[in-house]
Amino acid sequence: MKTTAALSRLFAGIQADLDLVDKTFQERATSGLDILNTASMHAISSPGKRLRTALTLLSGKLNTYRFQKLLLLSVAFEMTHLATLIHDDIIDEASTRRGHPTVNALWGDKISILLGDYYFAKTAGLIADIEDPRIDHLFSDTVATVCEGTILEIMTSGNADLSQETYFEKIKNKTACLFAACSKGGAIISGASPEEIERLHAYGQHLGIAFQIIDDILDYTQDQSTIGKPAGNDLRQGMVTLPLIYALEDESQNGYRQQVQSLLTQTTHKEEDITAIVGWVTRGNGVKKSLLDAHAHGNKAREALYHFPPSPDRDVLDELIDFVLSRNK
Amino acid sequence: MKTTAALSRLFAGIQADLDLVDKTFQERATSGLDILNTASMHAISSPGKRLRTALTLLSGKLNTYRFQKLLLLSVAFEMTHLATLIHDDIIDEASTRRGHPTVNALWGDKISILLGDYYFAKTAGLIADIEDPRIDHLFSDTVATVCEGTILEIMTSGNADLSQETYFEKIKNKTACLFAACSKGGAIISGASPEEIERLHAYGQHLGIAFQIIDDILDYTQDQSTIGKPAGNDLRQGMVTLPLIYALEDESQNGYRQQVQSLLTQTTHKEEDITAIVGWVTRGNGVKKSLLDAHAHGNKAREALYHFPPSPDRDVLDELIDFVLSRNK
Repeated sequence: MKTTAALSRLFAGIQADLDLVDKTFQERATSGLDILNTASMHAISSPGKRLRTALTLLSGKLNTYRFQKLLLLSVAFEMTHLATLIHDDIIDEASTRRGHPTVNALWGDKISILLGDYYFAKTAGLIADIEDPRIDHLFSDTVATVCEGTILEIMTSGNADLSQETYFEKIKNKTACLFAACSKGGAIISGASPEEIERLHAYGQHLGIAFQIIDDILDYTQDQSTIGKPAGNDLRQGMVTLPLIYALEDESQNGYRQQVQSLLTQTTHKEEDITAIVGWVTRGNGVKKSLLDAHAHGNKAREALYHFPPSPDRDVLDELIDFVLSRNK
Repeated sequence: MKTTAALSRLFAGIQADLDLVDKTFQERATSGLDILNTASMHAISSPGKRLRTALTLLSGKLNTYRFQKLLLLSVAFEMTHLATLIHDDIIDEASTRRGHPTVNALWGDKISILLGDYYFAKTAGLIADIEDPRIDHLFSDTVATVCEGTILEIMTSGNADLSQETYFEKIKNKTACLFAACSKGGAIISGASPEEIERLHAYGQHLGIAFQIIDDILDYTQDQSTIGKPAGNDLRQGMVTLPLIYALEDESQNGYRQQVQSLLTQTTHKEEDITAIVGWVTRGNGVKKSLLDAHAHGNKAREALYHFPPSPDRDVLDELIDFVLSRNK
């Protein structure tokens, strides 16, 4: 688990606080209903969920570190993220996530819908305990925007003519919005100035965009053993992402558009068709161009960050950009 | 539309405020995404959604009427209710509600999941604007409890041995909890004393229990033309409700248990089997006993209400109990 080791090293300075966030998450997620507890414990045992918490805490460290409030915000955002993942897995009809069975695979769609709703409800209680109207609205706006992003994703799926512009709007709303809310929320709680809040918001947003582009690249370049899902998964779901958009824009490759369009709208797929398109996208310039975009957003994140004076915590947020850009799972 | 006329007469004194709640609901439910607006407008056009608002406003009138805050709370609770209905219709695989096609029937499950989530998010923003931590927690606890009630409903469906106790726990959490939150929230905002808040909470809870029992009775006694869904719908869904529980408790009728149990777990049903069980339940004492229970809870609601001095607004809350008990759709 090279990635986990790299993150552990990066987050060594906030390790104790990250552990407290985990502990509080578990306390707040409990219910009188056994099945809710079992499903919760299952869902929160998946890896890769500390990124948003780290972002919240580290952003909060650039000014006055108010851990008790940041703790509540971190748990709230991890819970929001989990609620959206649980609902996403229903929408995507996904049976595994990072190698683990999804909640819908284990308990069915009905329980999964309600488990997500239950988490949204619990999140509202955590946000209320922070007692800051700016955080209340940040939370409400963020969840609404994530929903809008996901709806846009559903509505544009199966369409080979998806524009770069719509792609970026989609990932900004669906993914980057929550990253931006974490760093902005950390800034608000720590008493940052309006300019600093705006800069940390920009940092989180560009980091989130870079994160999603890399995610979309990995869907083409990595296989099941590394990322816990088969390569070409987005294609199977009819989802058009940046590497494919660039590949389709390459006029010398025009012959493929028809084939891609038909693949995107099929409900069952021949594995060789998926493999052929995955191979075509990875051989061309689609991946390379997407990687350049990810790096451009990484640079914008860095630019926003460099308005803050150098500090060990700024260094970690800086290294986090490199981590997001170089991750391979 | 006898029922609507009766409600209009009952709510004449708060008609202008009810209209303002509707207007604000529409303003707050808008989005940059067209499909969200269309789906929202469709969902909020269904009738029968003013009961919770009236409960909130009228409870608020028993002390200092603070309409601006009650307006926000009313919109929030109507939106919460709508979000749960949209998700319920996915869970129940319902294609119509009160004679109108459901959101999932028109736009599919995926959009419906997200529309519900979107409403939850918007609700959090409304609640935040009230700026009262007690309301924040009332909202969070209420939505969590409604989810728990719905999960209990799913887990106990298909089981002919459902106890009265579990049935009442289910309807208390799934339905009555939101009624209780409306009257309690109205009391909190109007500056009621802790005792008065507790009494209005009890009023709403008993009213809600009575409401749900009547709903469950109507599912046996009324047909599609009156309630907008076919009689025996709960049976088709595998849902065991109070009239059936009482019918099954009648030992002289023991021969039916096997037949009911097998009907509850079937995925497709012969219409004559449904009609036979509906007939058996309505001919026996199940409906009569359920009606007695509904009236007992109506009386408890009245008892809680009569701690308040007589006033025209108390009279309306009083008549609301009669309306809930005597409604036929």
